[in-house]
Amino acid sequence: MEKLYVGIDFGGTYVKGGVITGSGEMIRFDQIPTESEKGVNSVIERLIAFIERLIGEDEVSGIGLGIPGLIDSERGEVVISGNIKWERVRIVDALKKRFDCPISIQNDANVAALGECRFGVGKRFKDCVFLTLGTGVGSGIIIDGKIFSGNHSAGAEIGHMIIHPDGEPCSCGNRGCLETYASATALKRETLKEIARNPSSKMNEVKKGEVGGKTAFMYAKCDESAKRVVDKYIEDLAIGITNVANIFRPEAIILGGGVAKEGETLLVPLRKKLSERIYAKGLGPEVEIICSTLKNAGVFGAAALNIDK
Amino acid sequence: MEKLYVGIDFGGTYVKGGVITGSGEMIRFDQIPTESEKGVNSVIERLIAFIERLIGEDEVSGIGLGIPGLIDSERGEVVISGNIKWERVRIVDALKKRFDCPISIQNDANVAALGECRFGVGKRFKDCVFLTLGTGVGSGIIIDGKIFSGNHSAGAEIGHMIIHPDGEPCSCGNRGCLETYASATALKRETLKEIARNPSSKMNEVKKGEVGGKTAFMYAKCDESAKRVVDKYIEDLAIGITNVANIFRPEAIILGGGVAKEGETLLVPLRKKLSERIYAKGLGPEVEIICSTLKNAGVFGAAALNIDK
Repeated sequence: MEKLYVGIDFGGTYVKGGVITGSGEMIRFDQIPTESEKGVNSVIERLIAFIERLIGEDEVSGIGLGIPGLIDSERGEVVISGNIKWERVRIVDALKKRFDCPISIQNDANVAALGECRFGVGKRFKDCVFLTLGTGVGSGIIIDGKIFSGNHSAGAEIGHMIIHPDGEPCSCGNRGCLETYASATALKRETLKEIARNPSSKMNEVKKGEVGGKTAFMYAKCDESAKRVVDKYIEDLAIGITNVANIFRPEAIILGGGVAKEGETLLVPLRKKLSERIYAKGLGPEVEIICSTLKNAGVFGAAALNIDK
Repeated sequence: MEKLYVGIDFGGTYVKGGVITGSGEMIRFDQIPTESEKGVNSVIERLIAFIERLIGEDEVSGIGLGIPGLIDSERGEVVISGNIKWERVRIVDALKKRFDCPISIQNDANVAALGECRFGVGKRFKDCVFLTLGTGVGSGIIIDGKIFSGNHSAGAEIGHMIIHPDGEPCSCGNRGCLETYASATALKRETLKEIARNPSSKMNEVKKGEVGGKTAFMYAKCDESAKRVVDKYIEDLAIGITNVANIFRPEAIILGGGVAKEGETLLVPLRKKLSERIYAKGLGPEVEIICSTLKNAGVFGAAALNIDK
């Protein structure tokens, strides 16, 4: 019988889990609310019960978890996680008391990258970089089919690459990180600024509380001011993508998160800009830019932490 | 008897070569002028004769070459090299006709990084990033003791990471690449600008033709305008180093090239800035910043291309 693996995607709101075969078939899926406000011990107890329920009568060959924040995968420790308000939690040790199989943890963006690269749109690549354009800019780097995340898995913070040194302040304490220009949050901020600046913008139709990362894209075809916001967003994202391409020269850069739902509207100009800007253009191998497609990439990727390639 | 390896550092002016033991002892060293103006075939013929002379009566287990430019190490091809004016030269095939051992090529900065990380100041690290601050900003990335250089070894161009999108034009066609701010060339450019702007600068003592990357550092202690140039240079280099640390979280960043000779004058402020700016400061593992020490790192690294770790 094919081996089975548990993958857990530990989010701020929900903990999603699945049982996956070595070849990437999900045979069971479930979710529970995270309820991090109840404290670390309560969360871990409910997590253990959740995993036990997922496993049921099966035998599993590994349990993997993707968790937001700074995760030390070597020590099996959540160093700090803003989303669930944990600091220095040795979660792997806690789980080892109950489960007798390999247990691995990694940062959630790294895990989603692995899922996408192993079982999703990145399946045909061995080297790819995954960028999630959401509340922040998360990233995962896959080299030779495996996560690269630096010493004690504290790296792969491409969202905190400074691209405008005198730019917008970032939550990390620096200014002008890619995240402050290429996240959905940044897109919303710039959209609101443009609306305030320009009373004739058609985007004024939208109620202020409903302005989001999609607004400027929705109006870009019929409104100059919306188009400006989109163009500027894509320009900054293209700087980040050019840097990633020049540093990693991956086979592909995969975009996920809310903004990636714009699909071709985003991809067509990004591909053009990258082809004009990549180092030694026309001479080196091309870098594809594609959008993520896998549902529950985090669950698949977490399971894949224990699946040999 | 210990196995022997040939390492060749192929520069624009000299071809340097050595025979090295598996444990990193150089038992023979020599060099010849490159004379690239004589054409590809002539250079390759003289290179073959040079390697034969280096090998002498010994038996070698591999020949490695570090070559400036875009090198496709998988295909054994110099895709393009501005320094020696080669394009699409299948140098490994040419050498294979004469030598019956594994032959490897790689970009010269990658090879220098490997040499430094295997046999130099980086010996105690398994992950490090090497930046050469010279005419340009070269870079080499060592992950788990091996060169990481991306698909068809076209990556690792950290010098072409854009940090000032509206900044100085770069030879690659973009603006504001790290190279245009952190190279010795950039330092010289800014020094000349400062001298022209400021007639009271003490740096006016230096003859214009003798102004170089060292000038501002030499005067920084006694001249405000020189100090401004140095401070700005270090600030931009620190942006590049912060980005490298956040993306790779290596154990160390090693600085080589002419500017790295400034040693502590450079390292002390860089370390301070990095410690203030690194992602999740104080929580993740530290990233050391050190200066390169190995003489002929390129020769050692080229030999190491064939030495298993």
